[in-house]
Amino acid sequence: MSENKGPLQGKVILDLTTALAGPYATLLLAGLGARVIKIENPTRGGDSSRNNSPYVTADGLSVRRSDPRDMSVSMMVRGRNKESMTLNLKHPASRDIFLDLARQADIIVENYSAGVTKRLGIDYDAVRSVNSKLIYTSISGFGAQGVSVGDGKAMDTIIQALSGVMMTAGEPGDPPVRFGLPVGDLVAPMFAVIGTLAAVIHADETGEGQHVDVSMLGSLTSLVACEPFDALESVGIPLRTGAYVPRLAPFGTFRSADGWFAICAPTDSFADGALRAIDRADLAGDAKYASRDARVHNADELHDLIAQWAASRPMDEVLHTFEAHGVPVAPVRDTADAVRDELVLQRHEVVPIVHPQFGHIDGLYGSGLPVTFSRSGADLSQPAPALGEHTDTVLAEMLGLEAPAIDRLRTDGVL
Amino acid sequence: MSENKGPLQGKVILDLTTALAGPYATLLLAGLGARVIKIENPTRGGDSSRNNSPYVTADGLSVRRSDPRDMSVSMMVRGRNKESMTLNLKHPASRDIFLDLARQADIIVENYSAGVTKRLGIDYDAVRSVNSKLIYTSISGFGAQGVSVGDGKAMDTIIQALSGVMMTAGEPGDPPVRFGLPVGDLVAPMFAVIGTLAAVIHADETGEGQHVDVSMLGSLTSLVACEPFDALESVGIPLRTGAYVPRLAPFGTFRSADGWFAICAPTDSFADGALRAIDRADLAGDAKYASRDARVHNADELHDLIAQWAASRPMDEVLHTFEAHGVPVAPVRDTADAVRDELVLQRHEVVPIVHPQFGHIDGLYGSGLPVTFSRSGADLSQPAPALGEHTDTVLAEMLGLEAPAIDRLRTDGVL
Repeated sequence: MSENKGPLQGKVILDLTTALAGPYATLLLAGLGARVIKIENPTRGGDSSRNNSPYVTADGLSVRRSDPRDMSVSMMVRGRNKESMTLNLKHPASRDIFLDLARQADIIVENYSAGVTKRLGIDYDAVRSVNSKLIYTSISGFGAQGVSVGDGKAMDTIIQALSGVMMTAGEPGDPPVRFGLPVGDLVAPMFAVIGTLAAVIHADETGEGQHVDVSMLGSLTSLVACEPFDALESVGIPLRTGAYVPRLAPFGTFRSADGWFAICAPTDSFADGALRAIDRADLAGDAKYASRDARVHNADELHDLIAQWAASRPMDEVLHTFEAHGVPVAPVRDTADAVRDELVLQRHEVVPIVHPQFGHIDGLYGSGLPVTFSRSGADLSQPAPALGEHTDTVLAEMLGLEAPAIDRLRTDGVL
Repeated sequence: MSENKGPLQGKVILDLTTALAGPYATLLLAGLGARVIKIENPTRGGDSSRNNSPYVTADGLSVRRSDPRDMSVSMMVRGRNKESMTLNLKHPASRDIFLDLARQADIIVENYSAGVTKRLGIDYDAVRSVNSKLIYTSISGFGAQGVSVGDGKAMDTIIQALSGVMMTAGEPGDPPVRFGLPVGDLVAPMFAVIGTLAAVIHADETGEGQHVDVSMLGSLTSLVACEPFDALESVGIPLRTGAYVPRLAPFGTFRSADGWFAICAPTDSFADGALRAIDRADLAGDAKYASRDARVHNADELHDLIAQWAASRPMDEVLHTFEAHGVPVAPVRDTADAVRDELVLQRHEVVPIVHPQFGHIDGLYGSGLPVTFSRSGADLSQPAPALGEHTDTVLAEMLGLEAPAIDRLRTDGVL
């Protein structure tokens, strides 16, 4: 049996997150086998992601919902493998319940704006006093110390703008390039999971828990800083080179008769193959293209040759021809094709998304856990819970509360 | 003392990685406090990153190197906090040394093409027989089972093309947008670290090690699948909307007289603030802009109003005015400004890069470990090692080899 369980089996996580960045962190932890108890505010319909159009309904996707079972696509993707319990953290009676749960938890993850958990009395200082081994992970726009820019609203586009990432695409003088992939929202949770797991290793060894503080801006900027772009520019290696990368020529994206493709042929032998592929074996030995330095010098001509050859040919022929000549080549796929890649689906790196009542809606795919363990499991196939679906079971199992006590809490507006 | 050490202190990693994706994974693990022993091939000058121009020299950055102390910027960034030992894994005598080291290691990370470690006799099956608790992490283009597309050369641009990410920027009909930030290379190592740490938690608990298999394509595609882009398009929420996001209007990037900025004002109150900021308080109550639905319908007009107002005004005034009206706004920074953000540097999310002999070159920054632990340390300030700098100490400390034995191995071409 242990072969089918995730490596975090047995770990209990209290999940205070909403929107995208926080829930993606706890989604990954759930996919690794932790028990994730999502604590939602009952007074506003729970996590705001539950109110994001579109919804999956009995009749398929719809921009509006009309049935209590209808669930937003956002929640269907981000809520998988989690339990949901309601708890109104603004109600005075909620704090003891929360701290009683925290006593039995291994990890808490939250993405409130900096300062909010302190006001609610559920910040790390409040929790450590009842559970010193607990890991308390915070994801915020700029870090736990508070705001650095403007009013601190850390929406993805704001983080992209500040991080420099928008200026790594396009050509010199082009406007900034906003990524549709919300990298500002997605990179921070990955670092939050890394920090959380490292802290768990430390806690398992020493018994010492701690606060793990991750900034969206810091996370994305650290990734941008993996390549020292401005140092490279200072020695003449420009960053914004559009579709082509002249310093690696032939290298970039080109158009075929029926779609775009990328080739990456930076070495002499790849470049030689590329010239033969486009019926220019006559140029294969030419001094203009025989060395990297020569190709860099003649990059425009070389890229034009390829572009002209490819423009009138069908994609299949283009791909086949470059492959036959040993040149790394791939079609540029749109997201719809990419998430349906046979191997990616087979490896569960992308998985079909399932509604708890209505099943799988054709075409609805979501992120899997892109790690294959030889021994442990990794799974994100469990449908997202309805709001508060597990309130009673969590309170009964973890706190030993009986039905009348739970009913009273519900009547009092605590749950 | 324990306050200043990373959470992975005491863990030993054998690092077989080269280029970017693999070394970034072990860089993060080193930043978390693990001891990373980078094993490099002595016959080709070690990791290919050592031969990437430009170099840091005694006279600053240079496209060429002329002194043995000159070090590539790539290695200076990726080699930090690691030890380097040479070992020629193609030499028959290397295998016993490698397995003796593996007996004492907690983690091995490699990013050879699928199948290579088996040919070298150092794949997971070979290693588990001497250390069943060891975690063996592989990063490859398409996964450990081998190639899915073309010849399997998993360069960043190929992975970007296949993942769909290139089609998440720009407008309908635009060419694909290649990101200068090598997301194909950088996302897989983050998942590899997540998988590795989760497996360590499992191993510490059960004594069971395992193989952790991460695909570059699967990793990036899973991130793309966090948002169900094609399902959204099917209900009329398009993905490629260029600089603006009409469904959240006013929302997007705009030009001031001296630079670009982003505003994100999707709510009624933010939108109201934006209209007041551009001196159009008269439109604040107007039915055209009073509700989200109305703004979506009139998004072009609304974005034009903002663009016209901002175009002639200096950035400082634009930012100040939107901020004063409570509208989330930020400058679009280039990478050079972004990596110098005061708060990001203060939080060590980006750090100055230091040459072992020549010190810090002005303007050279690299990724930090963007996680702040309240108890553990996180540090990437140690300069990268010279090729083989730690060969003797590692062999002496870990295997008890004495100088004459090491000299003989070196003479024989094993080291």
